[in-house]
Amino acid sequence: MTSQHDVQIRVRVTRGNEVAIGPGKIDLLAAIHSAGSISGAARSMGMSYRRAWLLVETMNQCFERPLVETATGGKSGGGATLTAEGVAVLNAYTVMMKEVDEVARRHVARLLEQSPLAG
Amino acid sequence: MTSQHDVQIRVRVTRGNEVAIGPGKIDLLAAIHSAGSISGAARSMGMSYRRAWLLVETMNQCFERPLVETATGGKSGGGATLTAEGVAVLNAYTVMMKEVDEVARRHVARLLEQSPLAG
Repeated sequence: MTSQHDVQIRVRVTRGNEVAIGPGKIDLLAAIHSAGSISGAARSMGMSYRRAWLLVETMNQCFERPLVETATGGKSGGGATLTAEGVAVLNAYTVMMKEVDEVARRHVARLLEQSPLAG
Repeated sequence: MTSQHDVQIRVRVTRGNEVAIGPGKIDLLAAIHSAGSISGAARSMGMSYRRAWLLVETMNQCFERPLVETATGGKSGGGATLTAEGVAVLNAYTVMMKEVDEVARRHVARLLEQSPLAG
């Protein structure tokens, strides 16, 4: 009898004033992993190249070792790949969100059973 | 050897286009619970009375039964108290966030051990 609802969960890791990783940056890492370039990833996310590039810069600077490696030069402008570090961060975040999601949704289901949303 | 970082976790429950509960609304519920009025809660949160009132309206409309009960009228403008439903939602969300927090922080600690932030 619960009405249509959605549970939105966000986990961010900040370093000083900067977001080292969060949902947007993780989506971008995944998109670079499958597109093989920052421009392709930006396009698939409907994001400007400049914004994607800045997000990558932030991530790379926040971590001790870079998450994304760009191959500048070459006629095609060069691609981008995740480093071993980038793959590890992407995987660890994904595993985390699976568990966090499950825990949160279980609690929310119980909460809404006790206190239903309006129909 | 990890540098100064912070983990920010947000869980929101939406109903249609509206946020039924999230960190801001839960903080407001807690503030009303201790202040005994919407105006006192707003003041303690550095929020306008109007904004606090609107957040309460949204919460009350999102749930089948209201979370906050206001006693309008009277010379002092009347106070506000959480209903049993409001107390239940506040408690359930707090318990949830304790567990979600613990799970997320455990994962983030492991992630940062493997992939440290820049010093």
